[in-house]
Amino acid sequence: MIDTKTKKEIKEPRITLVGAGPGDAELITIKGIKALKTADVVLYDALVNEELLEFAPEHATKVYVGKRSGDHSHSQESINKLMIDYALNYGHVVRLKGGDPFVFGRGYEELDHAASYSIPAEVIPGISSSIGVPGLQQIPVTHRGLSESFWVVTGTTMDGQVSADLYDAAKTKATVVVLMGLRKLAEIVKIYRAEGKNRLPVAVIQSGSTENEKVAIGVVDTIVELVEEKKIKSPALIVIGEVVSLHPQFQPIREFYEIIAQE
Amino acid sequence: MIDTKTKKEIKEPRITLVGAGPGDAELITIKGIKALKTADVVLYDALVNEELLEFAPEHATKVYVGKRSGDHSHSQESINKLMIDYALNYGHVVRLKGGDPFVFGRGYEELDHAASYSIPAEVIPGISSSIGVPGLQQIPVTHRGLSESFWVVTGTTMDGQVSADLYDAAKTKATVVVLMGLRKLAEIVKIYRAEGKNRLPVAVIQSGSTENEKVAIGVVDTIVELVEEKKIKSPALIVIGEVVSLHPQFQPIREFYEIIAQE
Repeated sequence: MIDTKTKKEIKEPRITLVGAGPGDAELITIKGIKALKTADVVLYDALVNEELLEFAPEHATKVYVGKRSGDHSHSQESINKLMIDYALNYGHVVRLKGGDPFVFGRGYEELDHAASYSIPAEVIPGISSSIGVPGLQQIPVTHRGLSESFWVVTGTTMDGQVSADLYDAAKTKATVVVLMGLRKLAEIVKIYRAEGKNRLPVAVIQSGSTENEKVAIGVVDTIVELVEEKKIKSPALIVIGEVVSLHPQFQPIREFYEIIAQE
Repeated sequence: MIDTKTKKEIKEPRITLVGAGPGDAELITIKGIKALKTADVVLYDALVNEELLEFAPEHATKVYVGKRSGDHSHSQESINKLMIDYALNYGHVVRLKGGDPFVFGRGYEELDHAASYSIPAEVIPGISSSIGVPGLQQIPVTHRGLSESFWVVTGTTMDGQVSADLYDAAKTKATVVVLMGLRKLAEIVKIYRAEGKNRLPVAVIQSGSTENEKVAIGVVDTIVELVEEKKIKSPALIVIGEVVSLHPQFQPIREFYEIIAQE
């Protein structure tokens, strides 16, 4: 009897990185829910919908490890350490991350840390906001005749800078999606103006897929003002490219420029 | 009594574009499943896992509209037409598409067609294979120190060509993911060689997330031969960039080149 009990208590440590999607709780995958249902511990980020925690068993420990701006209480190092400690002591740790774990989510660092302790780790992809959030606004990242590719870039690198890749991206015909770039919007606009793309369509979408969703649709030259007018705040993503012209709100903008051209 | 019956029979036409994910049936979203459960008709593509059809009600009509290579029985025009006919005659049409509806899925064309008939249409994002399939192989599309962006390009444009964007992509530091590009692999290799990137890591992944999954890990100079050896077939995607070096199978390749460098 004692043996059985002891066996039951010592659970095999394992870690599952789960992408929670962009915010709407229903945009997680079936596989993600199944992982949550077998969790002993859930470590969840700031942008994760907390309704998802209800899928975890009642006995499961739920720990918020969000890194909101200005709050440095949970460094990546401390998250890595917590993840290992919980796995070794409790069993199955679900690391619930906003969007997809590998799109600027530092997911590989967590995977690598688990491997260094020989703890088995699995990855369950999530809906990345880079594709899903424009999609919910019915802006396709690709569309025949308008875009044969899309390029997803971070607006906040390790050094807090816009990725140097954006300077390359602005030269191309790709649809460009900038994540974590709202605070750098003026700088991003400058990069596109330097390429003479002043009238390229731009969308800025706040809190996509949630009740706080807000959108500003304009062009490179007008988007900073529009974002201020609409009081758009982080988290927000920026979509730059001809595909944005497919959004219904772009129609009056197109007409405005057509009238100007005729005068 | 007759009135009630008539009312019940005339359902409001509506269309929902649902992303089915990369192949594993559990990689659809909860929201996608909910849409399927209220479907009167499901129009599904070649790369959709047919297990998902079981979520649709028994009475629902399930129609395969796949465009497999060489099979031109379902043109985009005929799919658009079917979608409208079914919506007007049966009610809720779920258009179930592989991956995400807006990643080379011609989803916007279907949305636009629905709009031209004033039929309400909704979009439910799916896991795009471009992010999810490398992720399941534990290849992160972004990783600090290796990649600050990723660029998803089609290997088969309207004209059947590799997108011209790939020539730009090969010049950059972005992780590049090529969808529908397996038949153009030799051409893609040529583009990268012209940039002197002969030893850039490359992964080719067939049927990601399914039981037919196969992977070849190499570098630009070796990948064509490896893909032949492993008999990798379509559907497959190509990941090109330093992040591929994080895959466990890359370790011996790295060591091989290190030995060569020492000799």
